[in-house]
Amino acid sequence: MKKVVLIRHGESVWNLENRFTGWTDVDLTETGTKEAIKAGKLLKEQGFKFEKAYTSYLKRANKTLNTILDQMDLDWIPVEKSWRLNEKHYGMLQGLNKAETAEKYGDEQVLIWRRSYDVPPTALDADDPRSPYLDPRYKDVDKKDLPLTESLKDTVERILPYWNDVIFPSLKNHDEIIVAAHGNSLRGIIKHLKGISDADIVSLNLPTAVPYLFEFDDNFNLVNDEFLGDPEEIKALMDAVANQGKKK
Amino acid sequence: MKKVVLIRHGESVWNLENRFTGWTDVDLTETGTKEAIKAGKLLKEQGFKFEKAYTSYLKRANKTLNTILDQMDLDWIPVEKSWRLNEKHYGMLQGLNKAETAEKYGDEQVLIWRRSYDVPPTALDADDPRSPYLDPRYKDVDKKDLPLTESLKDTVERILPYWNDVIFPSLKNHDEIIVAAHGNSLRGIIKHLKGISDADIVSLNLPTAVPYLFEFDDNFNLVNDEFLGDPEEIKALMDAVANQGKKK
Repeated sequence: MKKVVLIRHGESVWNLENRFTGWTDVDLTETGTKEAIKAGKLLKEQGFKFEKAYTSYLKRANKTLNTILDQMDLDWIPVEKSWRLNEKHYGMLQGLNKAETAEKYGDEQVLIWRRSYDVPPTALDADDPRSPYLDPRYKDVDKKDLPLTESLKDTVERILPYWNDVIFPSLKNHDEIIVAAHGNSLRGIIKHLKGISDADIVSLNLPTAVPYLFEFDDNFNLVNDEFLGDPEEIKALMDAVANQGKKK
Repeated sequence: MKKVVLIRHGESVWNLENRFTGWTDVDLTETGTKEAIKAGKLLKEQGFKFEKAYTSYLKRANKTLNTILDQMDLDWIPVEKSWRLNEKHYGMLQGLNKAETAEKYGDEQVLIWRRSYDVPPTALDADDPRSPYLDPRYKDVDKKDLPLTESLKDTVERILPYWNDVIFPSLKNHDEIIVAAHGNSLRGIIKHLKGISDADIVSLNLPTAVPYLFEFDDNFNLVNDEFLGDPEEIKALMDAVANQGKKK
């Protein structure tokens, strides 16, 4: 049985401040670090032995992964980082407080921006200080691939080539891998793996730092998927994410 | 100008307990983490922008590197890990308290084991629980390359192929790289770069978590090397390392 664990990063500073983060490189909070430690302990207890790890170009995902691997004494395994695992790009919304935005535009528009499948927020200008064109970490990425805003559809479309060409084929050489990324980039992978519709994927609320296990048989068919940990706690975490965009 | 920064990991649990560590995968102490944070802040202040990082298979070097990169907001750069950057293997001495060993064998024998160029400590048995043959992290390494003990000469000989074939050539594509490793693996690189004799290299005491900068001209000739930071503080750290093997 081949195993892939997907994990969303722990609480970040802007999760806490209820801001649209997207590609902004914000840090984990102390709670976020503790969540990652807890996930690492759980995965160790359950006997996981990852042989390869993937993560995004963003600090909150890297630190979640490093903390987990450290708890498991797997600091030494190879880690591959890709911008394609980054969070959805939120365009002009990046940096805005979600509750404020909701008050200004109404819950409905915010929900469309956050959760519609194919409506992207207003794009950043190419010379906006927040533009990825100006960030040296993306200098080797083809400009035509770099987004100035994204719908969830756009996010799914840029992540799937990396899943199909890099991550999934690595199961040929590795029995267990872990992917530490973001709410929306992981939605893309999960949508693909479980054949979830465009309409339904927008209401999948991934809890932070809860390991989500996918098991594949020898023909690489998905045979099982489950969240690891206490079911009630996971339910509460998912509800909290779902309520994040609501007015306060 | 091309730049390589070499850095020895911060204080580890067994540095503090004064034990021979070698390939044992011990953690950083809180002081060790603070040292790494300090090094990261210094490198950021001085404007370094590493494009690639190298480290060993050992937790204390990985965590030192990750902490530095995090301080510099360079969490996203590619990190390559190799067993060839591991600390010198101390054979049967691994786990023994240095002061106790000194009391038992005398300062002189301990100094020979720690600091002679070509006398390795007694080798581990292949089935010793400490043997790298039994550690899954080395399962892809050719057994003939895996040591059960090492002299400093052995350590130098296994690190140089990695320096010559992987790290140094990467300067063609990257202007600045960082290597986070161990007292003896870094001695190997420094011996090679500065043409230090077998006799002299054993008395080079690298301070923990102090960035050591090497600069190369466009023809990849070494033109400058210097420790970064406060000279008096560095001197005190080097003296502390030199005294580690003495009786207490």
